[in-house]
Amino acid sequence: MELYKIAALVEYDGTGFVGSQRQADGRTVQGEVEGALAKLTGVETRIHAASRTDTGVHAFGQVISFWVRDDLSPGVVVRALNHYLPDDVAVKGACVIDRDFDVRRRAVSRCYRYSISRQATPSPLRERYCLLMARVLNVPMMRRAARVLQGTHDFASFATSLEESESTVRVVHEARVVEAGGTVEFSIVGNAFLRHQVRNTVGQLLRVGLGKCSVEEFADLVSYPGRRIAGPAAPSRGLCLMQVRYEPSLPFAA
Amino acid sequence: MELYKIAALVEYDGTGFVGSQRQADGRTVQGEVEGALAKLTGVETRIHAASRTDTGVHAFGQVISFWVRDDLSPGVVVRALNHYLPDDVAVKGACVIDRDFDVRRRAVSRCYRYSISRQATPSPLRERYCLLMARVLNVPMMRRAARVLQGTHDFASFATSLEESESTVRVVHEARVVEAGGTVEFSIVGNAFLRHQVRNTVGQLLRVGLGKCSVEEFADLVSYPGRRIAGPAAPSRGLCLMQVRYEPSLPFAA
Repeated sequence: MELYKIAALVEYDGTGFVGSQRQADGRTVQGEVEGALAKLTGVETRIHAASRTDTGVHAFGQVISFWVRDDLSPGVVVRALNHYLPDDVAVKGACVIDRDFDVRRRAVSRCYRYSISRQATPSPLRERYCLLMARVLNVPMMRRAARVLQGTHDFASFATSLEESESTVRVVHEARVVEAGGTVEFSIVGNAFLRHQVRNTVGQLLRVGLGKCSVEEFADLVSYPGRRIAGPAAPSRGLCLMQVRYEPSLPFAA
Repeated sequence: MELYKIAALVEYDGTGFVGSQRQADGRTVQGEVEGALAKLTGVETRIHAASRTDTGVHAFGQVISFWVRDDLSPGVVVRALNHYLPDDVAVKGACVIDRDFDVRRRAVSRCYRYSISRQATPSPLRERYCLLMARVLNVPMMRRAARVLQGTHDFASFATSLEESESTVRVVHEARVVEAGGTVEFSIVGNAFLRHQVRNTVGQLLRVGLGKCSVEEFADLVSYPGRRIAGPAAPSRGLCLMQVRYEPSLPFAA
Protein backbone atom coordinates (compact mmCIF):
# COMPACT_ATOMS: atom_id res chain seq x y z
CA MET A 1 0.00 0.00 0.00
CA GLU A 2 1.39 3.36 -1.04
CA LEU A 3 0.56 6.75 0.47
CA TYR A 4 -0.28 9.78 -1.57
CA LYS A 5 -0.74 13.43 -0.68
CA ILE A 6 -4.09 15.12 -0.87
CA ALA A 7 -5.09 18.78 -0.75
CA ALA A 8 -8.59 19.47 0.53
CA LEU A 9 -10.80 22.55 0.41
CA VAL A 10 -12.31 23.13 3.83
CA GLU A 11 -15.13 25.36 5.10
CA TYR A 12 -15.78 26.02 8.76
CA ASP A 13 -17.84 28.13 11.10
CA GLY A 14 -15.18 29.44 13.48
CA THR A 15 -17.61 30.24 16.32
CA GLY A 16 -16.96 26.99 18.17
CA PHE A 17 -13.21 26.78 17.54
CA VAL A 18 -10.21 28.26 19.34
CA GLY A 19 -8.59 28.44 15.92
CA SER A 20 -7.48 26.37 12.98
CA GLN A 21 -4.34 25.05 14.58
CA ARG A 22 -4.09 22.38 17.27
CA GLN A 23 -3.51 23.85 20.74
CA ALA A 24 -3.06 22.56 24.24
CA ASP A 25 -6.66 23.39 25.11
CA GLY A 26 -9.86 23.83 23.19
CA ARG A 27 -11.56 22.61 20.07
CA THR A 28 -9.63 23.26 16.87
CA VAL A 29 -10.28 22.67 13.18
CA GLN A 30 -7.05 20.68 12.99
CA GLY A 31 -8.15 18.52 15.90
CA GLU A 32 -11.52 17.75 14.33
CA VAL A 33 -10.14 16.98 10.87
CA GLU A 34 -7.33 14.84 12.26
CA GLY A 35 -9.88 13.00 14.40
CA ALA A 36 -12.03 12.33 11.33
CA LEU A 37 -8.96 11.20 9.36
CA ALA A 38 -7.98 8.80 12.14
CA LYS A 39 -11.46 7.27 12.01
CA LEU A 40 -11.26 6.96 8.22
CA THR A 41 -7.71 5.62 7.92
CA GLY A 42 -7.17 3.95 11.27
CA VAL A 43 -3.85 5.76 11.67
CA GLU A 44 -2.91 9.09 13.21
CA THR A 45 -2.55 11.57 10.40
CA ARG A 46 -1.27 15.15 10.63
CA ILE A 47 -2.75 17.88 8.48
CA HIS A 48 -1.13 21.11 7.31
CA ALA A 49 -3.16 24.25 6.65
CA ALA A 50 -2.38 26.94 4.09
CA SER A 51 -3.45 29.78 6.39
CA ARG A 52 -3.61 29.88 10.14
CA THR A 53 -6.89 31.32 11.43
CA ASP A 54 -7.48 32.55 14.99
CA THR A 55 -10.21 31.81 17.52
CA GLY A 56 -13.63 32.52 16.05
CA VAL A 57 -12.44 33.27 12.51
CA HIS A 58 -14.43 31.50 9.79
CA ALA A 59 -13.22 29.94 6.56
CA PHE A 60 -15.06 29.50 3.31
CA GLY A 61 -11.98 28.26 1.47
CA GLN A 62 -9.20 27.02 3.74
CA VAL A 63 -6.82 24.54 2.13
CA ILE A 64 -5.20 21.68 4.01
CA SER A 65 -3.00 18.75 3.01
CA PHE A 66 -2.37 15.28 4.40
CA TRP A 67 -1.21 11.82 3.36
CA VAL A 68 -3.58 8.91 2.82
CA ARG A 69 -3.44 5.37 1.52
CA ASP A 70 -3.71 5.25 -2.25
CA ASP A 71 -6.74 2.95 -2.16
CA LEU A 72 -8.78 5.96 -1.00
CA SER A 73 -9.76 8.20 -3.89
CA PRO A 74 -10.15 11.95 -3.26
CA GLY A 75 -13.92 11.59 -3.72
CA VAL A 76 -14.09 8.86 -1.09
CA VAL A 77 -11.97 10.97 1.26
CA VAL A 78 -14.38 13.92 0.86
CA ARG A 79 -17.47 11.86 1.58
CA ALA A 80 -15.93 9.87 4.41
CA LEU A 81 -14.49 12.93 6.16
CA ASN A 82 -17.84 14.72 5.95
CA HIS A 83 -19.45 11.67 7.46
CA TYR A 84 -17.14 11.83 10.49
CA LEU A 85 -16.82 15.62 10.82
CA PRO A 86 -19.09 17.68 13.08
CA ASP A 87 -21.56 20.15 11.54
CA ASP A 88 -19.30 23.17 11.83
CA VAL A 89 -16.53 21.92 9.55
CA ALA A 90 -16.83 20.33 6.10
CA VAL A 91 -14.64 19.27 3.21
CA LYS A 92 -15.85 20.68 -0.11
CA GLY A 93 -13.40 19.02 -2.45
CA ALA A 94 -10.06 17.24 -2.68
CA CYS A 95 -7.36 16.45 -5.20
CA VAL A 96 -4.05 14.63 -5.37
CA ILE A 97 -0.95 16.83 -5.15
CA ASP A 98 2.76 16.21 -5.63
CA ARG A 99 4.69 14.76 -2.70
CA ASP A 100 6.67 17.98 -2.29
CA PHE A 101 3.72 20.37 -2.74
CA ASP A 102 3.50 22.54 0.39
CA VAL A 103 0.00 24.09 0.60
CA ARG A 104 1.28 26.97 2.70
CA ARG A 105 4.43 27.88 0.76
CA ARG A 106 2.94 27.28 -2.66
CA ALA A 107 -0.09 29.54 -2.07
CA VAL A 108 0.28 32.64 -4.22
CA SER A 109 -2.34 34.64 -2.32
CA ARG A 110 -4.97 34.58 0.40
CA CYS A 111 -8.24 36.48 0.31
CA TYR A 112 -9.96 37.51 3.53
CA ARG A 113 -13.28 39.26 3.94
CA TYR A 114 -14.52 41.23 6.92
CA SER A 115 -18.25 42.01 7.25
CA ILE A 116 -19.72 44.90 9.23
CA SER A 117 -23.48 45.30 9.55
CA ARG A 118 -25.11 48.63 10.38
CA GLN A 119 -27.33 47.75 13.29
CA ALA A 120 -28.32 49.58 16.46
CA THR A 121 -29.59 46.49 18.30
CA PRO A 122 -28.29 42.91 18.52
CA SER A 123 -29.06 40.73 15.48
CA PRO A 124 -29.05 36.98 16.18
CA LEU A 125 -29.28 36.17 12.47
CA ARG A 126 -26.30 38.34 11.51
CA GLU A 127 -23.91 38.62 14.38
CA ARG A 128 -22.49 35.15 13.98
CA TYR A 129 -20.70 36.30 10.81
CA CYS A 130 -20.71 40.10 11.13
CA LEU A 131 -19.54 42.82 13.41
CA LEU A 132 -22.60 44.91 14.31
CA MET A 133 -22.05 48.65 14.38
CA ALA A 134 -24.67 51.06 15.62
CA ARG A 135 -22.79 54.16 14.50
CA VAL A 136 -22.66 55.59 11.01
CA LEU A 137 -19.45 54.81 9.16
CA ASN A 138 -17.90 57.13 6.63
CA VAL A 139 -17.50 54.47 3.95
CA PRO A 140 -15.89 56.66 1.24
CA MET A 141 -13.19 57.60 3.76
CA MET A 142 -12.66 53.92 4.66
CA ARG A 143 -12.40 53.14 0.95
CA ARG A 144 -9.69 55.77 0.52
CA ALA A 145 -7.78 54.39 3.49
CA ALA A 146 -8.07 50.81 2.23
CA ARG A 147 -6.47 51.81 -1.07
CA VAL A 148 -3.37 52.91 0.84
CA LEU A 149 -2.76 49.28 1.80
CA GLN A 150 -2.28 48.15 -1.77
CA GLY A 151 1.28 47.39 -2.84
CA THR A 152 4.40 46.06 -1.14
CA HIS A 153 4.77 47.51 2.35
CA ASP A 154 6.25 46.79 5.73
CA PHE A 155 3.10 46.07 7.74
CA ALA A 156 4.84 45.94 11.14
CA SER A 157 2.39 48.59 12.49
CA PHE A 158 -0.47 46.14 11.96
CA ALA A 159 1.18 43.09 13.50
CA THR A 160 0.39 42.03 17.04
CA SER A 161 3.42 40.00 17.99
CA LEU A 162 6.63 40.36 16.06
CA GLU A 163 9.19 37.64 15.79
CA GLU A 164 12.48 39.47 15.42
CA SER A 165 13.82 37.22 12.73
CA GLU A 166 10.75 37.49 10.55
CA SER A 167 10.26 39.99 7.77
CA THR A 168 7.11 42.09 8.11
CA VAL A 169 7.00 43.02 4.45
CA ARG A 170 3.95 41.70 2.65
CA VAL A 171 2.32 42.33 -0.72
CA VAL A 172 -1.32 43.43 -0.79
CA HIS A 173 -2.73 42.87 -4.27
CA GLU A 174 -6.13 44.31 -3.54
CA ALA A 175 -7.90 45.99 -0.62
CA ARG A 176 -11.47 47.12 -1.10
CA VAL A 177 -14.41 48.43 0.89
CA VAL A 178 -17.85 47.75 -0.58
CA GLU A 179 -21.23 48.73 0.84
CA ALA A 180 -24.45 46.90 -0.02
CA GLY A 181 -27.77 46.57 1.78
CA GLY A 182 -26.65 47.85 5.17
CA THR A 183 -23.48 45.75 5.15
CA VAL A 184 -19.98 47.11 4.72
CA GLU A 185 -17.50 44.54 3.45
CA PHE A 186 -13.75 44.88 3.50
CA SER A 187 -11.86 42.41 1.34
CA ILE A 188 -8.13 42.05 1.13
CA VAL A 189 -5.99 39.86 -1.10
CA GLY A 190 -2.32 39.50 -0.29
CA ASN A 191 0.56 37.09 -0.69
CA ALA A 192 0.47 36.39 3.05
CA PHE A 193 -0.51 38.16 6.26
CA LEU A 194 1.12 38.79 9.63
CA ARG A 195 -0.51 37.50 12.78
CA HIS A 196 -3.70 39.55 13.45
CA GLN A 197 -2.88 41.81 10.51
CA VAL A 198 -6.34 41.72 8.94
CA ARG A 199 -8.23 42.26 12.19
CA ASN A 200 -5.86 45.06 13.23
CA THR A 201 -6.30 46.65 9.81
CA VAL A 202 -10.10 46.48 10.11
CA GLY A 203 -9.92 47.87 13.66
CA GLN A 204 -8.05 50.87 12.32
CA LEU A 205 -10.28 51.22 9.25
CA LEU A 206 -13.25 51.42 11.62
CA ARG A 207 -11.52 54.29 13.43
CA VAL A 208 -11.22 56.00 10.03
CA GLY A 209 -14.91 55.35 9.38
CA LEU A 210 -15.82 56.83 12.76
CA GLY A 211 -13.70 59.94 12.17
CA LYS A 212 -11.19 59.05 14.91
CA CYS A 213 -8.31 58.62 12.48
CA SER A 214 -7.66 60.50 9.26
CA VAL A 215 -6.70 58.80 6.01
CA GLU A 216 -3.32 60.55 6.38
CA GLU A 217 -2.76 59.07 9.83
CA PHE A 218 -3.81 55.69 8.48
CA ALA A 219 -1.35 56.07 5.62
CA ASP A 220 1.41 56.87 8.12
CA LEU A 221 0.95 53.41 9.66
CA VAL A 222 1.90 51.95 6.30
CA SER A 223 4.68 54.48 5.60
CA TYR A 224 6.26 54.31 9.07
CA PRO A 225 6.21 50.68 10.16
CA GLY A 226 7.51 51.58 13.63
CA ARG A 227 4.13 53.03 14.67
CA ARG A 228 1.52 51.11 16.58
CA ILE A 229 -2.16 51.23 15.76
CA ALA A 230 -4.32 52.96 18.33
CA GLY A 231 -7.56 50.98 18.29
CA PRO A 232 -8.25 47.38 19.19
CA ALA A 233 -8.33 44.57 16.61
CA ALA A 234 -11.78 44.03 15.10
CA PRO A 235 -13.54 40.99 16.62
CA SER A 236 -13.04 37.61 14.93
CA ARG A 237 -16.69 36.94 14.12
CA GLY A 238 -16.64 39.29 11.13
CA LEU A 239 -13.58 37.69 9.54
CA CYS A 240 -13.60 34.90 6.98
CA LEU A 241 -10.78 33.31 4.99
CA MET A 242 -12.45 33.27 1.58
CA GLN A 243 -9.85 31.75 -0.70
CA VAL A 244 -6.29 30.49 -0.95
CA ARG A 245 -5.06 30.75 -4.52
CA TYR A 246 -2.52 28.59 -6.34
CA GLU A 247 -1.07 28.85 -9.82
CA PRO A 248 -2.26 26.80 -11.56
CA SER A 249 -5.31 26.42 -9.33
CA LEU A 250 -5.82 23.10 -7.57
CA PRO A 251 -8.45 20.89 -9.27
CA PHE A 252 -10.62 20.24 -6.20
CA ALA A 253 -13.48 17.84 -6.84
CA ALA A 254 -16.23 16.70 -4.48
CA MET B 1 -48.49 52.58 38.74
CA GLU B 2 -50.31 51.96 35.49
CA LEU B 3 -49.61 49.25 32.94
CA TYR B 4 -49.36 49.85 29.25
CA LYS B 5 -49.14 47.55 26.27
CA ILE B 6 -46.06 47.30 24.15
CA ALA B 7 -45.43 45.73 20.76
CA ALA B 8 -41.85 44.61 20.14
CA LEU B 9 -40.01 43.61 16.97
CA VAL B 10 -38.05 40.44 17.63
CA GLU B 11 -35.31 38.62 15.72
CA TYR B 12 -34.16 35.11 16.53
CA ASP B 13 -32.00 32.30 15.28
CA GLY B 14 -34.36 29.35 15.50
CA THR B 15 -31.63 26.69 15.57
CA GLY B 16 -31.66 26.35 19.35
CA PHE B 17 -35.43 26.63 19.86
CA VAL B 18 -38.26 24.10 19.72
CA GLY B 19 -40.39 26.94 18.40
CA SER B 20 -41.72 30.38 19.22
CA GLN B 21 -44.42 29.20 21.56
CA ARG B 22 -43.99 27.90 25.08
CA GLN B 23 -44.19 24.11 25.29
CA ALA B 24 -43.96 21.46 27.96
CA ASP B 25 -40.37 20.68 27.03
CA GLY B 26 -37.56 22.51 25.35
CA ARG B 27 -36.26 25.99 24.91
CA THR B 28 -38.71 28.41 23.28
CA VAL B 29 -38.58 32.04 22.20
CA GLN B 30 -41.58 32.76 24.41
CA GLY B 31 -39.85 31.17 27.39
CA GLU B 32 -36.69 33.23 26.90
CA VAL B 33 -38.51 36.53 26.37
CA GLU B 34 -40.85 35.94 29.32
CA GLY B 35 -37.83 35.04 31.45
CA ALA B 36 -36.13 38.29 30.47
CA LEU B 37 -39.34 40.25 31.14
CA ALA B 38 -39.63 38.68 34.57
CA LYS B 39 -36.08 39.80 35.38
CA LEU B 40 -36.83 43.30 34.12
CA THR B 41 -40.20 43.81 35.74
CA GLY B 42 -40.10 41.47 38.72
CA VAL B 43 -43.46 40.01 37.75
CA GLU B 44 -44.50 37.13 35.55
CA THR B 45 -45.51 38.55 32.19
CA ARG B 46 -47.07 36.69 29.28
CA ILE B 47 -46.24 37.58 25.72
CA HIS B 48 -48.31 37.10 22.58
CA ALA B 49 -46.73 36.55 19.18
CA ALA B 50 -48.16 37.63 15.82
CA SER B 51 -47.03 34.44 14.06
CA ARG B 52 -46.30 31.05 15.48
CA THR B 53 -43.02 29.59 14.23
CA ASP B 54 -42.01 25.93 14.51
CA THR B 55 -38.88 24.23 15.79
CA GLY B 56 -35.81 25.56 14.02
CA VAL B 57 -37.60 28.31 12.08
CA HIS B 58 -35.88 31.70 12.22
CA ALA B 59 -37.41 35.15 12.50
CA PHE B 60 -36.05 38.43 11.28
CA GLY B 61 -39.23 40.34 12.11
CA GLN B 62 -41.49 38.55 14.57
CA VAL B 63 -43.85 40.84 16.50
CA ILE B 64 -44.87 40.23 20.10
CA SER B 65 -46.91 42.16 22.65
CA PHE B 66 -46.97 42.34 26.44
CA TRP B 67 -47.91 44.64 29.30
CA VAL B 68 -45.37 46.61 31.33
CA ARG B 69 -45.36 49.29 34.02
CA ASP B 70 -45.64 52.75 32.53
CA ASP B 71 -42.42 53.95 34.16
CA LEU B 72 -40.56 51.79 31.62
CA SER B 73 -40.25 53.52 28.26
CA PRO B 74 -40.15 51.37 25.10
CA GLY B 75 -36.49 52.32 24.65
CA VAL B 76 -35.64 51.13 28.16
CA VAL B 77 -37.57 47.92 27.56
CA VAL B 78 -35.57 47.24 24.36
CA ARG B 79 -32.21 47.77 26.04
CA ALA B 80 -33.10 45.92 29.23
CA LEU B 81 -34.55 42.91 27.42
CA ASN B 82 -31.47 42.66 25.20
CA HIS B 83 -29.35 42.77 28.33
CA TYR B 84 -31.18 39.76 29.78
CA LEU B 85 -31.82 37.81 26.56
CA PRO B 86 -29.45 35.10 25.28
CA ASP B 87 -27.48 35.68 22.07
CA ASP B 88 -29.97 33.92 19.79
CA VAL B 89 -32.91 36.22 20.41
CA ALA B 90 -33.00 40.02 20.38
CA VAL B 91 -35.48 42.88 20.49
CA LYS B 92 -34.92 45.36 17.67
CA GLY B 93 -37.54 47.93 18.57
CA ALA B 94 -40.66 48.59 20.60
CA CYS B 95 -43.63 50.93 20.68
CA VAL B 96 -46.73 51.56 22.74
CA ILE B 97 -49.95 50.11 21.34
CA ASP B 98 -53.62 50.46 22.26
CA ARG B 99 -54.92 48.26 25.06
CA ASP B 100 -57.12 46.33 22.64
CA PHE B 101 -54.54 46.00 19.86
CA ASP B 102 -54.05 42.28 19.15
CA VAL B 103 -50.75 41.75 17.31
CA ARG B 104 -51.98 38.51 15.78
CA ARG B 105 -55.46 39.57 14.66
CA ARG B 106 -54.44 43.04 13.55
CA ALA B 107 -51.60 41.84 11.31
CA VAL B 108 -52.58 42.41 7.68
CA SER B 109 -49.92 40.11 6.28
CA ARG B 110 -46.93 37.93 7.03
CA CYS B 111 -43.91 37.51 4.80
CA TYR B 112 -41.83 34.33 4.94
CA ARG B 113 -38.65 33.54 3.03
CA TYR B 114 -37.18 30.14 2.30
CA SER B 115 -33.54 29.85 1.17
CA ILE B 116 -32.07 26.98 -0.82
CA SER B 117 -28.38 26.89 -1.62
CA ARG B 118 -26.98 24.88 -4.51
CA GLN B 119 -24.24 22.87 -2.88
CA ALA B 120 -22.97 19.33 -3.38
CA THR B 121 -21.13 19.12 -0.04
CA PRO B 122 -22.03 20.32 3.46
CA SER B 123 -21.51 24.05 4.05
CA PRO B 124 -21.06 25.03 7.72
CA LEU B 125 -21.32 28.74 6.88
CA ARG B 126 -24.60 28.38 4.99
CA GLU B 127 -26.56 25.46 6.29
CA ARG B 128 -27.65 27.19 9.46
CA TYR B 129 -30.01 29.34 7.39
CA CYS B 130 -30.36 27.44 4.12
CA LEU B 131 -31.41 24.10 2.79
CA LEU B 132 -28.47 22.71 0.82
CA MET B 133 -29.36 20.99 -2.43
CA ALA B 134 -26.84 19.11 -4.50
CA ARG B 135 -29.16 18.59 -7.44
CA VAL B 136 -29.97 21.11 -10.15
CA LEU B 137 -33.35 22.79 -9.73
CA ASN B 138 -35.49 23.92 -12.62
CA VAL B 139 -36.02 27.42 -11.27
CA PRO B 140 -38.23 28.76 -14.10
CA MET B 141 -40.60 25.85 -13.47
CA MET B 142 -40.63 26.56 -9.73
CA ARG B 143 -41.36 30.20 -10.51
CA ARG B 144 -44.35 29.22 -12.64
CA ALA B 145 -45.65 26.94 -9.89
CA ALA B 146 -45.21 29.65 -7.24
CA ARG B 147 -47.38 32.02 -9.25
CA VAL B 148 -50.26 29.54 -8.97
CA LEU B 149 -50.34 30.17 -5.22
CA GLN B 150 -51.26 33.82 -5.62
CA GLY B 151 -54.82 34.76 -4.81
CA THR B 152 -57.51 33.49 -2.46
CA HIS B 153 -57.49 29.71 -2.26
CA ASP B 154 -58.35 26.84 0.00
CA PHE B 155 -54.87 25.65 1.00
CA ALA B 156 -56.03 22.49 2.78
CA SER B 157 -53.71 20.38 0.60
CA PHE B 158 -50.73 22.18 2.13
CA ALA B 159 -51.81 21.94 5.77
CA THR B 160 -50.38 19.31 8.07
CA SER B 161 -53.01 19.06 10.76
CA LEU B 162 -56.49 20.33 10.14
CA GLU B 163 -58.77 21.54 12.87
CA GLU B 164 -62.24 20.79 11.59
CA SER B 165 -63.74 24.05 12.70
CA GLU B 166 -61.08 26.13 11.06
CA SER B 167 -61.28 27.57 7.57
CA THR B 168 -58.35 26.64 5.35
CA VAL B 169 -58.91 29.54 2.98
CA ARG B 170 -56.04 32.02 2.94
CA VAL B 171 -55.03 34.92 0.74
CA VAL B 172 -51.57 34.86 -0.82
CA HIS B 173 -50.67 38.36 -1.96
CA GLU B 174 -47.35 37.40 -3.48
CA ALA B 175 -45.33 34.24 -4.06
CA ARG B 176 -41.99 34.53 -5.81
CA VAL B 177 -38.92 32.46 -6.62
CA VAL B 178 -35.70 34.41 -7.13
CA GLU B 179 -32.26 33.05 -7.93
CA ALA B 180 -29.05 34.90 -7.14
CA GLY B 181 -25.49 33.77 -6.62
CA GLY B 182 -26.17 30.06 -6.22
CA THR B 183 -29.09 30.65 -3.83
CA VAL B 184 -32.74 30.12 -4.70
CA GLU B 185 -35.12 32.13 -2.54
CA PHE B 186 -38.83 31.58 -2.26
CA SER B 187 -40.78 34.38 -0.63
CA ILE B 188 -44.44 34.37 0.16
CA VAL B 189 -46.67 37.11 1.54
CA GLY B 190 -50.12 36.20 2.77
CA ASN B 191 -52.77 37.31 5.21
CA ALA B 192 -52.05 34.25 7.36
CA PHE B 193 -50.76 30.70 6.94
CA LEU B 194 -51.92 27.27 8.02
CA ARG B 195 -49.71 25.14 10.21
CA HIS B 196 -46.66 23.98 8.17
CA GLN B 197 -48.16 25.56 5.05
CA VAL B 198 -45.00 27.33 3.96
CA ARG B 199 -42.69 24.36 4.52
CA ASN B 200 -45.14 22.00 2.80
CA THR B 201 -45.37 24.44 -0.10
CA VAL B 202 -41.58 24.59 -0.41
CA GLY B 203 -41.35 20.80 -0.18
CA GLN B 204 -43.69 20.55 -3.13
CA LEU B 205 -41.99 23.37 -5.06
CA LEU B 206 -38.75 21.43 -4.70
CA ARG B 207 -40.44 18.43 -6.29
CA VAL B 208 -41.42 20.71 -9.16
CA GLY B 209 -37.83 21.93 -9.41
CA LEU B 210 -36.58 18.35 -9.49
CA GLY B 211 -39.05 17.35 -12.19
CA LYS B 212 -41.01 15.03 -9.90
CA CYS B 213 -44.18 17.10 -10.07
CA SER B 214 -45.48 19.15 -12.98
CA VAL B 215 -46.75 22.70 -12.66
CA GLU B 216 -50.18 21.30 -13.54
CA GLU B 217 -50.09 18.76 -10.72
CA PHE B 218 -48.93 21.53 -8.40
CA ALA B 219 -51.82 23.71 -9.55
CA ASP B 220 -54.22 20.85 -8.79
CA LEU B 221 -53.20 20.99 -5.14
CA VAL B 222 -54.50 24.54 -5.06
CA SER B 223 -57.59 23.82 -7.18
CA TYR B 224 -58.59 20.65 -5.36
CA PRO B 225 -58.03 21.22 -1.67
CA GLY B 226 -58.84 17.61 -0.84
CA ARG B 227 -55.50 16.36 -2.19
CA ARG B 228 -52.44 15.74 -0.08
CA ILE B 229 -48.98 16.76 -1.13
CA ALA B 230 -46.65 13.92 -1.95
CA GLY B 231 -43.26 15.10 -0.71
CA PRO B 232 -42.11 15.88 2.80
CA ALA B 233 -42.14 19.41 4.23
CA ALA B 234 -38.93 21.32 3.58
CA PRO B 235 -36.66 21.43 6.66
CA SER B 236 -37.07 24.35 9.09
CA ARG B 237 -33.55 25.69 8.79
CA GLY B 238 -34.26 27.39 5.47
CA LEU B 239 -37.36 29.21 6.70
CA CYS B 240 -37.45 32.70 8.16
CA LEU B 241 -40.38 34.89 9.20
CA MET B 242 -39.25 38.13 7.58
CA GLN B 243 -42.01 40.59 8.40
CA VAL B 244 -45.42 41.01 9.96
CA ARG B 245 -47.20 43.99 8.44
CA TYR B 246 -49.76 46.30 10.03
CA GLU B 247 -51.72 49.20 8.59
CA PRO B 248 -50.63 51.76 9.55
CA SER B 249 -47.26 50.18 10.32
CA LEU B 250 -46.16 50.08 13.94
CA PRO B 251 -43.62 52.79 14.85
CA PHE B 252 -40.96 50.52 16.37
CA ALA B 253 -38.01 52.40 17.81
CA ALA B 254 -34.85 51.04 19.43
